[in-house]
Amino acid sequence: MRIARFSLDGNVAFGVVEGDANTEGGPVLDIIKGHPFAEFERSGQKLPLDKVRLLPPVLPNKVVAIGRNYAEHAKELGNEVPDAPVVFFKPSTSVCGPGDPVTYPSFSSEVHHEAELAVVIGRMCKEVPRERVKDVVLGYTCGNDITARDAQRREEQWARAKGFDSSCPLGPWVETELDPADLGIMCTVNGEQRQLGRTSEMVRSIEDLVVHITEAMTLLPGDVILTGTPAGVGPLNVGDEVAVTIEGIGTLTNKVIKRD
Amino acid sequence: MRIARFSLDGNVAFGVVEGDANTEGGPVLDIIKGHPFAEFERSGQKLPLDKVRLLPPVLPNKVVAIGRNYAEHAKELGNEVPDAPVVFFKPSTSVCGPGDPVTYPSFSSEVHHEAELAVVIGRMCKEVPRERVKDVVLGYTCGNDITARDAQRREEQWARAKGFDSSCPLGPWVETELDPADLGIMCTVNGEQRQLGRTSEMVRSIEDLVVHITEAMTLLPGDVILTGTPAGVGPLNVGDEVAVTIEGIGTLTNKVIKRD
Repeated sequence: MRIARFSLDGNVAFGVVEGDANTEGGPVLDIIKGHPFAEFERSGQKLPLDKVRLLPPVLPNKVVAIGRNYAEHAKELGNEVPDAPVVFFKPSTSVCGPGDPVTYPSFSSEVHHEAELAVVIGRMCKEVPRERVKDVVLGYTCGNDITARDAQRREEQWARAKGFDSSCPLGPWVETELDPADLGIMCTVNGEQRQLGRTSEMVRSIEDLVVHITEAMTLLPGDVILTGTPAGVGPLNVGDEVAVTIEGIGTLTNKVIKRD
Repeated sequence: MRIARFSLDGNVAFGVVEGDANTEGGPVLDIIKGHPFAEFERSGQKLPLDKVRLLPPVLPNKVVAIGRNYAEHAKELGNEVPDAPVVFFKPSTSVCGPGDPVTYPSFSSEVHHEAELAVVIGRMCKEVPRERVKDVVLGYTCGNDITARDAQRREEQWARAKGFDSSCPLGPWVETELDPADLGIMCTVNGEQRQLGRTSEMVRSIEDLVVHITEAMTLLPGDVILTGTPAGVGPLNVGDEVAVTIEGIGTLTNKVIKRD
């Protein structure tokens, strides 16, 4: 099931996406009564998908992200695969949705794309045992861990380099029925392929990451884990259109704009 | 004005603290109608302070913290004063209030106290010019940037070491009328003095920090900036009572407990 969050005439709601580009009349959203973090009903009230504005599919309280979780990517930046997962935060203010602009930050001249599988947490959890990880996951979406690479090199902790406004596009929706073990993940810039990998290449699995993170901290419904990026990261320039596509989920597209 | 957040019989509200231990009948809370992030009225309905449970004085969306902002503290851990402020996040799930337990995390055997002046943001802001910083600050409270020092050494990014549950006590209230330039800041453990410094020793001023942080990201009402800790950090053990006292604000006390 694909669960989207959207706004229409100033109202925000969740809906289940039905159909696709090949469906007669195009895909529609069946509006959810309430929110998707508990049992929910579909209203049966349907809207054409192209009539609404898709929002980030969740509003995370926090995004917990993982560095160097693909060996080839660690290597391309001259790093070793770390002994322990590299865990950092992207704040809620960095999140934007499908189609939203990514604003080039003033303090950087080297902004990179990083296509990543995003895990969406479905329930409050702490110290999750490995065999219960699947129970705390609502589903998966596409993420782009946009990074000011020059600031990341200059600044020991990555809060600014990876936490600036609009540095965390998420979307287009949460796919709840998906085995994340071996999915193709791709990033294009202006239609040209830049990153290509498979989630099976992750150094640490999603189970490993949830255990490691929740050993320390509580995750809340809607929190997101970004699971690291495959090789091929590279620069984004003002005017570029960056797209993250993950097999079985869909495509998250954003345009890079100049700040006012 | 001292603004506290409290719960009584399951209801949560803000109140203005009037009087102190020397006041006849003890200090009281004048309940605020609404919240303190806009013009507000006092209800005139007063509660004895000792009848309520004080909560963290704000529920931050994010806590933005600064490392090595006191030269003597940088030195005691064998570090240089950094060229640029070291900026990192503590998540909302790490926040606890005055009197709340700090739970010793499972992945550490060396948890340290770090007494810090906490700046509470009063309005949504981005790219704040130096001369407008005072306009975006609601006030100041005491913070304790509790740190799993061993994990901080082992893990390149500090999300777990400084972001575990209950690692960010804040309180007891927000003092809105205070010049933060030269305040005494002290940490005691079981009544014994461990840290002593003055905010005038900060390498970067509050103005510097707000400019630097908001160059990258939007701050929201209730967000908190932890401004770094003076020298004297040291271990906390289960059973210890740690107290952060800041001149003109008050004392934030927490007890370290064993996790279940």
